[in-house]
Amino acid sequence: MAAAVPEICGFSCCLVLLRSLRGNWKIHSQYGTPGPFLRWVINHATRSWITYTSMKYCSSCATEVARNIPKGDTRERWVCGNCGVVHYQNPKIVVGCIPERDGKILLCKRAIEPRRGFWTAPAGFMELGESIAEGAARETLEEACAKVEIGHLFASVDVVYAGQLHLFFKAKLLSDFAAGDESLDVKLFEVDDIPWNDLAFTSNRFALEKYIGDAGRDNGVHMCAIKKKRESDPI
Amino acid sequence: MAAAVPEICGFSCCLVLLRSLRGNWKIHSQYGTPGPFLRWVINHATRSWITYTSMKYCSSCATEVARNIPKGDTRERWVCGNCGVVHYQNPKIVVGCIPERDGKILLCKRAIEPRRGFWTAPAGFMELGESIAEGAARETLEEACAKVEIGHLFASVDVVYAGQLHLFFKAKLLSDFAAGDESLDVKLFEVDDIPWNDLAFTSNRFALEKYIGDAGRDNGVHMCAIKKKRESDPI
Repeated sequence: MAAAVPEICGFSCCLVLLRSLRGNWKIHSQYGTPGPFLRWVINHATRSWITYTSMKYCSSCATEVARNIPKGDTRERWVCGNCGVVHYQNPKIVVGCIPERDGKILLCKRAIEPRRGFWTAPAGFMELGESIAEGAARETLEEACAKVEIGHLFASVDVVYAGQLHLFFKAKLLSDFAAGDESLDVKLFEVDDIPWNDLAFTSNRFALEKYIGDAGRDNGVHMCAIKKKRESDPI
Repeated sequence: MAAAVPEICGFSCCLVLLRSLRGNWKIHSQYGTPGPFLRWVINHATRSWITYTSMKYCSSCATEVARNIPKGDTRERWVCGNCGVVHYQNPKIVVGCIPERDGKILLCKRAIEPRRGFWTAPAGFMELGESIAEGAARETLEEACAKVEIGHLFASVDVVYAGQLHLFFKAKLLSDFAAGDESLDVKLFEVDDIPWNDLAFTSNRFALEKYIGDAGRDNGVHMCAIKKKRESDPI
């Protein structure tokens, strides 16, 4: 195994170099744009970093699609060879909040996978037709049957490996609460009783730590980026 | 036409009522969940508010898809009747920044539609495999051939009718600049010379106004939601 280390290091360095090139065609084009073969090598070598959803057929004409770099683009996409439609895939937004009343924080115990049985701030995928603040309030209504007044945005977590951006708002709990369809339990926690070892997601931990650190002040948006999936990461 | 006013008002009120119901099944379920017919009426009546992309065929099995509310869901989605895959569509993220050097702001004149010939902060769709800050830096490299040091997030604009979230960072311009493939021109503007009447997008105007108002301070994230498309809106 020891003999493999330099090879692995060399391979990693090569990938890092390739990655630094990827997506930077424009700046490099001053010195000549990489040709199709080099672009193919770079795209395939760095594919492991990129989260995209598998796709077999074109949703416009039902022809089989393939991974190609469209003309004028710098990245591989799902492209239809028949009708030419490019099927772009982009990160999704997860919106949530930390509802507080009398210094206590409302958390939900998940009834669904991933991380069934673990605690989370009310949060979920943003829907079309709503703002991020409305999405955070809707998720709280759905998961905790609770109405909230949304405050300022205080945490932004890029879950890069999953192709997700998690956004968290401060919130004031305005109503009673109960477990929604996606929750086993919903509970108000004193700050000292937050179940840190039973939190569902890394982004939850980050948001709760920063929320408590802010102690009600608006210190702008705390940011972090989770690049690679760890064994403990559920998604 | 005058006789139609009450009808229009009545119709609008009805839509507003239906809209307030839509997506709130959980809270209403305390008083009985609406049946399939009422859900169909509500979804169809409020469809005009929701921005979704047309889809004809399932990308997994090439069967024709239809708009349906999946079991356990509350919203219409594109659903495949053959393999059962639900094709979720969610808002997309646009990331950008306001690059500044010596009190001057870098803007790009668009070479592409929408709004070709109008000025914009460097910004574009976030890609898989990057953080929002990396996306903002990449877009600046592509559109203005400029390197930037990304600062704090200061503006968030929900362009609800377009299904987009626009996020803007403060940034320090670190390099020379030139027009990228998507720009006709790139220029440093004194604050007094910003071409307010020739800005490409409403979100640009909001971001620039807040950026100038902040005068370098981190006042948290300024937010606004643009719900409906106006005639002057390009997208």
